[in-house]
Amino acid sequence: MAGSPRRAAGRRLQLPLLCLLLQGATAILFAVFVRYNPETDAALWHSGNRSSSDNEFYFRYPSFQDVHVMVCVGFGFLMAFLQRYGFSSIGFTFLLAAFALQWSTLIQGFFHSLHGGHIHVGVQSMINADFCAAAVLISFGAVLGKTGPAQLLLMALLEVLLFGVNEFVLLSLLGVKDAGGSMTIHTFGAYFGLVLSRVLYRPQLEKSKHRQGSVYHSDLFAMIGTIFLWTFWPSFNSAPTMLGDGQHRTTLNTYYSLTASTLGTFALSALIGEHGRLDMVHIQNAALAGGVVVGTSGEMMLTPFGALAAGFLAGTVSTLGYKFFTPVLEAKFKLQDTCGVHNLHGMPGVLGALLGVLVAGLATHEAYGDGLGSVFPLVAEGQRSATAQAMYQLFGLLVTLTFASVGGGLGGLLLRLPFLDPPPDSQCYEDRIYWEVPGEREDEAQGSLRAEETDTRA
Amino acid sequence: MAGSPRRAAGRRLQLPLLCLLLQGATAILFAVFVRYNPETDAALWHSGNRSSSDNEFYFRYPSFQDVHVMVCVGFGFLMAFLQRYGFSSIGFTFLLAAFALQWSTLIQGFFHSLHGGHIHVGVQSMINADFCAAAVLISFGAVLGKTGPAQLLLMALLEVLLFGVNEFVLLSLLGVKDAGGSMTIHTFGAYFGLVLSRVLYRPQLEKSKHRQGSVYHSDLFAMIGTIFLWTFWPSFNSAPTMLGDGQHRTTLNTYYSLTASTLGTFALSALIGEHGRLDMVHIQNAALAGGVVVGTSGEMMLTPFGALAAGFLAGTVSTLGYKFFTPVLEAKFKLQDTCGVHNLHGMPGVLGALLGVLVAGLATHEAYGDGLGSVFPLVAEGQRSATAQAMYQLFGLLVTLTFASVGGGLGGLLLRLPFLDPPPDSQCYEDRIYWEVPGEREDEAQGSLRAEETDTRA
Amino acid sequence: MAGSPRRAAGRRLQLPLLCLLLQGATAILFAVFVRYNPETDAALWHSGNRSSSDNEFYFRYPSFQDVHVMVCVGFGFLMAFLQRYGFSSIGFTFLLAAFALQWSTLIQGFFHSLHGGHIHVGVQSMINADFCAAAVLISFGAVLGKTGPAQLLLMALLEVLLFGVNEFVLLSLLGVKDAGGSMTIHTFGAYFGLVLSRVLYRPQLEKSKHRQGSVYHSDLFAMIGTIFLWTFWPSFNSAPTMLGDGQHRTTLNTYYSLTASTLGTFALSALIGEHGRLDMVHIQNAALAGGVVVGTSGEMMLTPFGALAAGFLAGTVSTLGYKFFTPVLEAKFKLQDTCGVHNLHGMPGVLGALLGVLVAGLATHEAYGDGLGSVFPLVAEGQRSATAQAMYQLFGLLVTLTFASVGGGLGGLLLRLPFLDPPPDSQCYEDRIYWEVPGEREDEAQGSLRAEETDTRA
Repeated sequence: MAGSPRRAAGRRLQLPLLCLLLQGATAILFAVFVRYNPETDAALWHSGNRSSSDNEFYFRYPSFQDVHVMVCVGFGFLMAFLQRYGFSSIGFTFLLAAFALQWSTLIQGFFHSLHGGHIHVGVQSMINADFCAAAVLISFGAVLGKTGPAQLLLMALLEVLLFGVNEFVLLSLLGVKDAGGSMTIHTFGAYFGLVLSRVLYRPQLEKSKHRQGSVYHSDLFAMIGTIFLWTFWPSFNSAPTMLGDGQHRTTLNTYYSLTASTLGTFALSALIGEHGRLDMVHIQNAALAGGVVVGTSGEMMLTPFGALAAGFLAGTVSTLGYKFFTPVLEAKFKLQDTCGVHNLHGMPGVLGALLGVLVAGLATHEAYGDGLGSVFPLVAEGQRSATAQAMYQLFGLLVTLTFASVGGGLGGLLLRLPFLDPPPDSQCYEDRIYWEVPGEREDEAQGSLRAEETDTRA
Repeated sequence: MAGSPRRAAGRRLQLPLLCLLLQGATAILFAVFVRYNPETDAALWHSGNRSSSDNEFYFRYPSFQDVHVMVCVGFGFLMAFLQRYGFSSIGFTFLLAAFALQWSTLIQGFFHSLHGGHIHVGVQSMINADFCAAAVLISFGAVLGKTGPAQLLLMALLEVLLFGVNEFVLLSLLGVKDAGGSMTIHTFGAYFGLVLSRVLYRPQLEKSKHRQGSVYHSDLFAMIGTIFLWTFWPSFNSAPTMLGDGQHRTTLNTYYSLTASTLGTFALSALIGEHGRLDMVHIQNAALAGGVVVGTSGEMMLTPFGALAAGFLAGTVSTLGYKFFTPVLEAKFKLQDTCGVHNLHGMPGVLGALLGVLVAGLATHEAYGDGLGSVFPLVAEGQRSATAQAMYQLFGLLVTLTFASVGGGLGGLLLRLPFLDPPPDSQCYEDRIYWEVPGEREDEAQGSLRAEETDTRA
Repeated sequence: MAGSPRRAAGRRLQLPLLCLLLQGATAILFAVFVRYNPETDAALWHSGNRSSSDNEFYFRYPSFQDVHVMVCVGFGFLMAFLQRYGFSSIGFTFLLAAFALQWSTLIQGFFHSLHGGHIHVGVQSMINADFCAAAVLISFGAVLGKTGPAQLLLMALLEVLLFGVNEFVLLSLLGVKDAGGSMTIHTFGAYFGLVLSRVLYRPQLEKSKHRQGSVYHSDLFAMIGTIFLWTFWPSFNSAPTMLGDGQHRTTLNTYYSLTASTLGTFALSALIGEHGRLDMVHIQNAALAGGVVVGTSGEMMLTPFGALAAGFLAGTVSTLGYKFFTPVLEAKFKLQDTCGVHNLHGMPGVLGALLGVLVAGLATHEAYGDGLGSVFPLVAEGQRSATAQAMYQLFGLLVTLTFASVGGGLGGLLLRLPFLDPPPDSQCYEDRIYWEVPGEREDEAQGSLRAEETDTRA
């Protein structure tokens, strides 16, 4: 049945139709709702009598570009470590980002920047949309190789929506601080993806085990992703903070935290490796945990020492996670986490949220001076004590974990809809199902498709 | 005859002598004509009593850097998709860019920034020079693999000159708007290269057919190019626009247009692919058409919806071009377009010019307010109606197509000069002719050179 | 003995313990000494009553990010040209950078930004730390493939210290100008590494000769490094200069110099290559010499022509160095320079210092106007003549060569400490000693380790 011509035709049309449908829908919503904001609109900006050098563009755009590189180049290449899944890793990253940027402009716009029934867009909304796309790509990492592009688009459809709700609850309702998104991006994206992956558990996945590793060159491609992520992470965490000292301080904290997570990762990787050898997977991922762990507290007065300590902790925890936790997750919890997002985004994200609780709780007028209002406006205005802010931060983490888990569960059920055609167990981590792969003879490809059809689980 | 020692010695000396000659000539012209502009010159800047933070550098340089990455990394790696031509794709991109940047500084300087007999240079001239280099590299894409480096340098020599003339006619004489260069860069570069490729038509090119495709890893290298181009394209289109809202709006429009062209490309590629499979060539190229298509109108009040619609159209047209138009171009028009620049730059460039006609024609004082003077100064000053501006835009497209076609024809005749040694038909798309390629035994290389000499058409 | 279990256990623990020790030490020193500077600290910044847009962050951070990409992406991938050493090239670059950034924050802080017993950090200290990391990575290039990660960390420990001392002597005591570091970074890093490599001379290195070259794909990875370095070098040289015209002019000079060194490299490479073929090693490295050679004079009134001439000279000298000088260095001077840092950083660095002598000596009030104080404050204040400044510049070069040579000698002795386990002669340029390499059967790896142990020189 699975291999019937009708099925094949359905598969053929699923992705194009979904792309066209989603693009059509967002285009209509854009036409109705989305407008240039006053910094972007010719008439509105020039009615303001402001110097063009005051335009927010000049203070946010360089950060935006770095974030944009991280989302497209960083995540895409980081996931290209699989030997036979490079086209899909980079290509679907591209597809998901393109859709998520549009869709999250709408969702975030409805929640955050609705003015007279219109969503106002500009460089800030571009940064926010890229942040949401980052969360979607983190979730993609958990199900990498086991899901088709139509499934992934539906995942993004749901996840962007819930990301927007969760972010709105945290930032607007609870007054939680989370500039670099330890909670809203990393924790949310990781646990959404992990729960979703749990729902899609495949007991027969070892049929594709031989394709689950890397080859020499694919690891070098992945390092392109790692190093651009590492280099630009200070811009990521600081992109949406208050201008001035806030942005400056956040970059500094992130920079130091990343150096320490790198040293921690090398130390632990060599310590736990056979014959003292380093493991590329650790370096590619855990070295980045320092960026995740200061996502919440990076804009606070963490101190340079605090940044080093946090980064080191995150790097070591993340490396140990790959060695000791990932196998348990699969064996005991039936959770197959292709990229180890639990180690890079999950645990460091939760640690980052808790670090935010701690540093927020320690905030004093003395340490922040008149800058307290920029970092903790509700504390500066006397509406909350620092301890209360800390409690709100903690509550924000719990809210995030709840939204992520419930959302991931729903997403999993959605992706199990029978007409969505997942790759069969024996063809996971394989580009050939979705891409014309060069250098293969047509008959081979045909043969493999036939094998695939026989193997479909439906 | 072709394989004679004198011929071999000639080939050996051709590239070095041409490099030295061109470098010597531009150096002398630099010594005579090129001077720091008042924002760059120590004495002139400090005589101005201006704050260093007012220096234009701080408003243009981040955009310049993104453009510079696109020209060198983006174009270079995008063309590295060929399995045996990676050294040449990246290396000759590098060579052509280096020469074109110098030469276009002079040509554009003579036309645009001559002050008291001197060409003034600064960050704006750097951006303009990079734009001209982009046009040369677009043309390179049409003849990729079928021309030697000496031929390419001569092509650049001519193309930079004509680019400068065409740009001067459009921007200065006709008052046409074309910030991101849908006409001046993409249409010009594409049709110059295509006509040139037509003149160099090789009926026996199928002798090299086995090298004309990609291999798995070369496609991943090409994706480095694609994704950096995609990420930084908002900076490309906005780099030379008016400061303030103009630059801000252009980035936003380009950003959305690119997301839509990506979704359009994925939809169409899967729709027309065998078994519903995606084609890497489409993703690598057509997904970028959204940047090309808003090159003219990006700084105008296109609206976010307009950007989505334009991008989607460009992405689909470009993808369909690869499937249905490229084969016809070769079969019927004897036009061999290695990279499909007609699909990425030609058609989307023309579409972008027409979109500019439309959006310019719709410009009203109401929509632009006091900003009208920044975008359409002649309309704001009452020298032209919006409709007249639209007609000038259309005329600009025709002028560009004329210059590009005549220039490409002349370029083709120039490159057919008998002493310029093109690769033989059986050795196209092959690095070994121009590069020491690692891992080959010397005798093999010798053998192939001998085969090549026998095969030369002369 | 070498192959004894105790030895193996020692090797296994050496890197982790050293990482932990160094990280612990810098963390403690950070806790005691390092504090946010007034542009980064919430209380201090907000006590200043300044507009957030005045924060230095907005004038330096984009340059910093470009420098950061060069250090991590540029150097890492440039050294990935070796066929079996990509993991180590990129991975150890990453490790060395992470440590050097922390350690040089401390060392440079003690020398340059000690305020009331505390080191003040911000975007300027981040740029300076990245500059110091660049010097360490240059030295790494000279010993690439012949040293283990523990050795490299110790090298960095010493080199960062001496870099700080040398920089302090030049910039603070001698009043030498060297914004882009022709002396402090390139000359220092190159000769430190070369002398160190001399001390570690291995007469039996030809045992690893078959791994010393590149393969097709590794050369393409290296080109990623080259092109990012080339593209961002204008930001490197200008990152620490005076704001305004100084930064603007430096980028322009570097941009032109790089175009000329590229043309020079292509010319010479084809001229001296067999059959007129280009050599990738030249293109990857010598094309960058234009950035090195204007490191000192880039901020001066070099003139655009001067930049072209300097770049062309550097590109040709560097290319000739690969052909004629590197073999002599090894044969006559027992100096094995894996990456040819003498050609890319050594000779062009010295040339750049001498160019600085020349251009400083030619400085006049007429040419610089009121800008003289920004470039040559001591000359503007009348404390020195331009000729005296030139002499100081020359003296700075001699001081740098002395520090680099003595430091490299000490470093070599340090790295020969018997318990530091270098790779055996037959296993140089080989990732497998330090990394789990995918796609190898465990027994092969075991076999190779056994062979290695037998071969150890101890």
